[in-house]
Amino acid sequence: MRFDDSAIAAVYRAIFERRDMRHFTPAPVDPATLARLLRAAHHAPSVGFMQPWRFIRITDAALRTEIHSLVEAERRATADALGERQDEFMRLKVEGVRECGELLVVALTDDRERHVFGRRTLPEMDLASAACAIQNMWLAARAEGLGMGWVSLFDVGALRTLLGMPAGAKPIAVLCIGHVDAFYAKPMLEEERWATRMPIDACLFENGWDAPATQAADHAASGGTSPGSSPSPGVSAADGLSDSTPAATPPGR
Amino acid sequence: MRFDDSAIAAVYRAIFERRDMRHFTPAPVDPATLARLLRAAHHAPSVGFMQPWRFIRITDAALRTEIHSLVEAERRATADALGERQDEFMRLKVEGVRECGELLVVALTDDRERHVFGRRTLPEMDLASAACAIQNMWLAARAEGLGMGWVSLFDVGALRTLLGMPAGAKPIAVLCIGHVDAFYAKPMLEEERWATRMPIDACLFENGWDAPATQAADHAASGGTSPGSSPSPGVSAADGLSDSTPAATPPGR
Repeated sequence: MRFDDSAIAAVYRAIFERRDMRHFTPAPVDPATLARLLRAAHHAPSVGFMQPWRFIRITDAALRTEIHSLVEAERRATADALGERQDEFMRLKVEGVRECGELLVVALTDDRERHVFGRRTLPEMDLASAACAIQNMWLAARAEGLGMGWVSLFDVGALRTLLGMPAGAKPIAVLCIGHVDAFYAKPMLEEERWATRMPIDACLFENGWDAPATQAADHAASGGTSPGSSPSPGVSAADGLSDSTPAATPPGR
Repeated sequence: MRFDDSAIAAVYRAIFERRDMRHFTPAPVDPATLARLLRAAHHAPSVGFMQPWRFIRITDAALRTEIHSLVEAERRATADALGERQDEFMRLKVEGVRECGELLVVALTDDRERHVFGRRTLPEMDLASAACAIQNMWLAARAEGLGMGWVSLFDVGALRTLLGMPAGAKPIAVLCIGHVDAFYAKPMLEEERWATRMPIDACLFENGWDAPATQAADHAASGGTSPGSSPSPGVSAADGLSDSTPAATPPGR
């Protein structure tokens, strides 16, 4: 049931080298590759097996331009809302809607209320399922050598109207997918010093909020490779695994 | 930048063979393995790089029992809410909280309002980020031969109180992680005929809601392997890739 070491390393490599891309080359995406990414998405877990995700492929150039306009309007609104970080934000490249080879809009379908299993107290689990589907695509795309970016800068109602969605449906992502010159060595917002990666032990508690975790945190902070741990090639580096970290590269590459 | 064929196959294998597990053996999880799963989670994408996820490891047996009681109460409330499918639901095994080797609670942290980037119109993108982190763990666990299940059957306020979370934090998942006798060949809710997998072309539109997609859907329906597509070992089977499908097994296994 356990994958062999090289297969385990490949899964971790996709996880650590995946990036939220905003820089693309305009080369087209092979339709068969796109289909594989969509199948990967469709095999995500979903609460009560409800499969709430819908994917709208944008092939109409005028429609892509209109989507870009929506994103650009929200980018400016976000800048205004950011206050003192406004200028810094406006210097960031936050999307590649016009350049990417493939543009998809992901939406939650309408008629979700009838799905109660796993959602009675947490109705937003439909979004969680769709996010898992998008993460599947992201990892598959990275393995296939394609970049992907999740843009959430848009007015929900405007995008719903633009694409003729029913009132109960909700767009949650504009996905830019395409070829890239290079993957960022680190998350672009880390490279651009917008934010830093938290130490992992700041995210780990034990038996209660803010209670420091003991054993697991120690292992996590050391990369999960303390003496006695099972060997797992490609995941032995300390914090900051990235494209440029040799240890993140599986054997043979 | 593209992974080699065997590494691509490993990523797809994790995606297609991952299952939402509810049956576990009580064998303990190696702490180093748990740490690797947590590092995989922490390297998920997050909106504006906000890293909203917090993980509470439950090692106290009494606390685990209390969490199970919360889940059981919500299971019964869900059954009541389901009406005519109540009996069918009550026959399903929906969680492995008491049996699994490791129990984690995942929560969104408090103080999220200050993160505006990518959340001005879609504040729930913090949940989407945390779901991507959980999907990373799920795929890494599958590669490591461990099962994982996401339980969302609980009263949010009661679990928040039980674990001493601040008011702004929100529990989103009880994660059961552990060794399993076998992974389900298909999603358990599909095996148990709770729901069926939708044809993928029912999830794909082009340029507008309900507008049938053309090329990509054809490729997706055929498994993304029509003539001219690049070879991708391990992803050539038609719908229903699973543990029992030889084509889902990478070379050498």
